[in-house]
Amino acid sequence: MIGKRFSPEEYVKGVLNGDKVVLGRAITLIESINPADQDISDKILNLLMPHTGKSIRIGITGVPGVGKSTFIESFGTYLIKEKGKKVAVLAIDPSSQLSKGSILGDKTRMEQLSVNDKAFVRPSPTNLNLGGVAAKSREVLLLCEAAGFDVILIETVGVGQSETTVKGMVDFFLLLMLAGAGDDLQGIKRGIMEMVDHIAINKTDGDNTKASKEAQKQLKNALHFFPPAQSTWQPKVTTCSALIGVGLDQIWKTIEDYCSLTKSTGYFEKQRKNQNVKRMHEFIIDALSRDFYDKDGMAQKINEIEELIKAGKISPYQGGNMLFNPKSD
Amino acid sequence: MIGKRFSPEEYVKGVLNGDKVVLGRAITLIESINPADQDISDKILNLLMPHTGKSIRIGITGVPGVGKSTFIESFGTYLIKEKGKKVAVLAIDPSSQLSKGSILGDKTRMEQLSVNDKAFVRPSPTNLNLGGVAAKSREVLLLCEAAGFDVILIETVGVGQSETTVKGMVDFFLLLMLAGAGDDLQGIKRGIMEMVDHIAINKTDGDNTKASKEAQKQLKNALHFFPPAQSTWQPKVTTCSALIGVGLDQIWKTIEDYCSLTKSTGYFEKQRKNQNVKRMHEFIIDALSRDFYDKDGMAQKINEIEELIKAGKISPYQGGNMLFNPKSD
Repeated sequence: MIGKRFSPEEYVKGVLNGDKVVLGRAITLIESINPADQDISDKILNLLMPHTGKSIRIGITGVPGVGKSTFIESFGTYLIKEKGKKVAVLAIDPSSQLSKGSILGDKTRMEQLSVNDKAFVRPSPTNLNLGGVAAKSREVLLLCEAAGFDVILIETVGVGQSETTVKGMVDFFLLLMLAGAGDDLQGIKRGIMEMVDHIAINKTDGDNTKASKEAQKQLKNALHFFPPAQSTWQPKVTTCSALIGVGLDQIWKTIEDYCSLTKSTGYFEKQRKNQNVKRMHEFIIDALSRDFYDKDGMAQKINEIEELIKAGKISPYQGGNMLFNPKSD
Repeated sequence: MIGKRFSPEEYVKGVLNGDKVVLGRAITLIESINPADQDISDKILNLLMPHTGKSIRIGITGVPGVGKSTFIESFGTYLIKEKGKKVAVLAIDPSSQLSKGSILGDKTRMEQLSVNDKAFVRPSPTNLNLGGVAAKSREVLLLCEAAGFDVILIETVGVGQSETTVKGMVDFFLLLMLAGAGDDLQGIKRGIMEMVDHIAINKTDGDNTKASKEAQKQLKNALHFFPPAQSTWQPKVTTCSALIGVGLDQIWKTIEDYCSLTKSTGYFEKQRKNQNVKRMHEFIIDALSRDFYDKDGMAQKINEIEELIKAGKISPYQGGNMLFNPKSD
């Protein structure tokens, strides 16, 4: 499953040299849920930590059909060709474990990028294990940084819990939308609109141009009614077409402006530190929950208590107490 | 601390008779963090559970200065006088433990309501204990229902975590705002706009009327850009003046419409069941966390690990692992 084994030092050397094959294997090792791989993972991470943190981390979300894959292909290629960047693409896709289709599973959707020397496209893992791979997404990002990728694009689907996870690990969060005056909001989870740093209206080309420009105007007005972000950054709305490569420069300029502002105020660094500390506590809560919920017979007991609660026979507090302190049951 | 002691049956009888003195004492007992009170609390709750669930639970939020207390005084009095309701007022105010001022601490701010036979105003507890009183807010609500109050107004401040707690225990969530085209959003936490079922622009009186009507128009437009709620309810924007008692009937009509819609679709009941089950799991996570974080020496150890994470010396995953599995340290 892990493939050829290297020593920790070999992994580290390969990653620091930007060797994509070694990077891929190091990621597989870090993602491994086999306890035997824990020690070597830890060693690799420890050695690589001083080489991390130098990228700009960009989350990209939007409903299915908005053109995320095409956008990433187009934007990534633009960053490599026009801006001399090295670009890594990761995916947070909790749905893939249910075989609902991995966003990056089909590599052919990023034909240009996946064969580009300066790009690294990591398909979404297909054997997701709660608390396993999902828990390591930040560590995968760190490995990519150590390998010298200076822009990390993290793709998410716009419909689940994954946005909160991604928001908690990126510097800048981009929402792709389509023209249609709110129709395309159908698939977006509530709360996402208020966590984005920028909205780009994609597919602004041909017959669609006029509708896109109109949507841009309306969204700009709507954004006035969103509470200001802690970053003091005021989200903008631009239009783009990933298909014909228009508007990408404006998005990149916006990201640069955002970085300038938040680096000068200290927010950029502060956010990263807070994200990491928060993630550490999430890890602890995840681990505590797993210990509790995975106990023998717990699933059935929970099911019984949930039924009592739903039937209004006991209060939530009483239900929790019965599960947590079975002696008082 | 608990005052005069009754038998569980006496508490139950008093509550079911709508005796406000007994109700107040039963609440104090339920809120007690003294383990010795647990058994009698449980008995009381068990006996009262069949008499709960018949109220409409309304959460009310908004920034300080928006006029929440005056609104509740005015709206509560309207419901009693015009609609023949019995109204209970509760507060979720995590800030009161820090002596930042309890929202309902000053009862004189609800002079009419607090002396009205058909109203019960429960001041926010002043000795809040994490996981204690806060954990019991749903149980307090259930006691008020058992006492025959058919509208429960739950006040929150618009600036903290309390909105999520309140959203998780009410049927309908009302946001009070002021005219001023977004200026008054300064104090509202991101995400709150997307969890409300209705927005009422308060202080629509005198010179302020024109500005309020303009704000109403703009907010209505802005709401088109909020993703639709699971309830399929489309939030509305109305204007009101709690001071001169205008627009209260429109708000109540909206709440009735909301109830009709969501009861006919089954969402009303489904939401309550989900809230309760979710709350039960929150209780478990709270209890697990307290057990873990309250261990001797844990606070200092966490502090050390957090510093390592902030300095970029270890990853969040490694930090969590060091705390959770100290043997692998």
